[in-house]
Amino acid sequence: MKVNVVKSVLKANDLIAENNRDLFRQYRTVALNLISSPGSGKTTLLERTISALKPAQQSVVIVGDLETSRDADRLQPHAYEVTQINTGLSCHLYANQIAQSARDLPLDQADYLFIENVGNMVCPGEFDLGENLKVALLSICEGDDKVAKYPTIFRVADIILLTKMDLIDVIDFDMDRVQSDIRKLNQEAPLMKISVKSCTGFDEWIQWLQDKRESSVGVKAKFVET
Amino acid sequence: MKVNVVKSVLKANDLIAENNRDLFRQYRTVALNLISSPGSGKTTLLERTISALKPAQQSVVIVGDLETSRDADRLQPHAYEVTQINTGLSCHLYANQIAQSARDLPLDQADYLFIENVGNMVCPGEFDLGENLKVALLSICEGDDKVAKYPTIFRVADIILLTKMDLIDVIDFDMDRVQSDIRKLNQEAPLMKISVKSCTGFDEWIQWLQDKRESSVGVKAKFVET
Repeated sequence: MKVNVVKSVLKANDLIAENNRDLFRQYRTVALNLISSPGSGKTTLLERTISALKPAQQSVVIVGDLETSRDADRLQPHAYEVTQINTGLSCHLYANQIAQSARDLPLDQADYLFIENVGNMVCPGEFDLGENLKVALLSICEGDDKVAKYPTIFRVADIILLTKMDLIDVIDFDMDRVQSDIRKLNQEAPLMKISVKSCTGFDEWIQWLQDKRESSVGVKAKFVET
Repeated sequence: MKVNVVKSVLKANDLIAENNRDLFRQYRTVALNLISSPGSGKTTLLERTISALKPAQQSVVIVGDLETSRDADRLQPHAYEVTQINTGLSCHLYANQIAQSARDLPLDQADYLFIENVGNMVCPGEFDLGENLKVALLSICEGDDKVAKYPTIFRVADIILLTKMDLIDVIDFDMDRVQSDIRKLNQEAPLMKISVKSCTGFDEWIQWLQDKRESSVGVKAKFVET
């Protein structure tokens, strides 16, 4: 019985996700769904990313957390507009929450919509929000066994970021094992080693975003600087 | 509608959890449910804990992960017996999975049943497994904003362990903020600072386990050494 319930919830979710995808296409906004455990550095990455993309490219953000507006408060100074969704007891965002929030966001002004999902390595990978691209983050502090044990998000990711690389010398982390585990699940997604603190890999990540924007909506930016 | 579905699943789960609790009482086995994000150090803590409790006290373990038996393989040399549950797509354990696994475990020989839940800060805090005590772990690598953003497990915890304390000098972590956030949610649970690597706080944790065993089942150990 449990499986049937989950399936019907997933089916309803997928229909709304398709509508969301149509909406983003119509506005030529690239939507990215950021998925990881709590504390992998999603908000810190977004603060820096949104600033680096400006002024040529503007971003709006939807943030999911169980409670508080702390992440939205942090992103507000950087983004064009931010919406915080408090999920209460839910460990992931649903497509209908994105549909509701997107309605009130200025998508006509936004080159990117970053969706920072609830910190959780499992369910956010199973619920399509209508995004164009899924970004999986793994902090090296979480350990080198996590890819094999929690494969969901690594299977579906369009890019995989290994974060907090500045700590590589003080953490036991077998990089070869992680790379090998990732490649068993996903041969296509680029794997980037990132530290926002030491700026490692950051330019490469920004370049990937810009390339993806151009290839998916055919323009570099909505409002090119004069 | 979603809320109704969740409620009925929770209600069915709670009934089975009560049966599990009766079973543990009958065998005088103390059951602990370990809950945290992936990578907070649950398995490493259990390896060391189970060894430190021996030979006076024996432990059995149930481990939940989406895939692999890596945690069970690690715990097997230390525990009396270990059962790995692979949850597939589910981000937490259910009471019926514990009921099934407990049936085949030698509870008559076990002073402790450690249940290592799926790595997730949200749903494992909402599903009663019939345990006697809930243990919440937070690795300091995850950041000092996690208690307020993910309050579920901290509200219900009987003890809260701040782990990976050996990294305190290389991580930005506001201990006062975390302690204050925890006390807003939970005034009762002891808060212990732990590092398995540097042995910080470890004796205090073992003492807590032994005190709780004596106060909940009235005996220190099933088979006292002669």
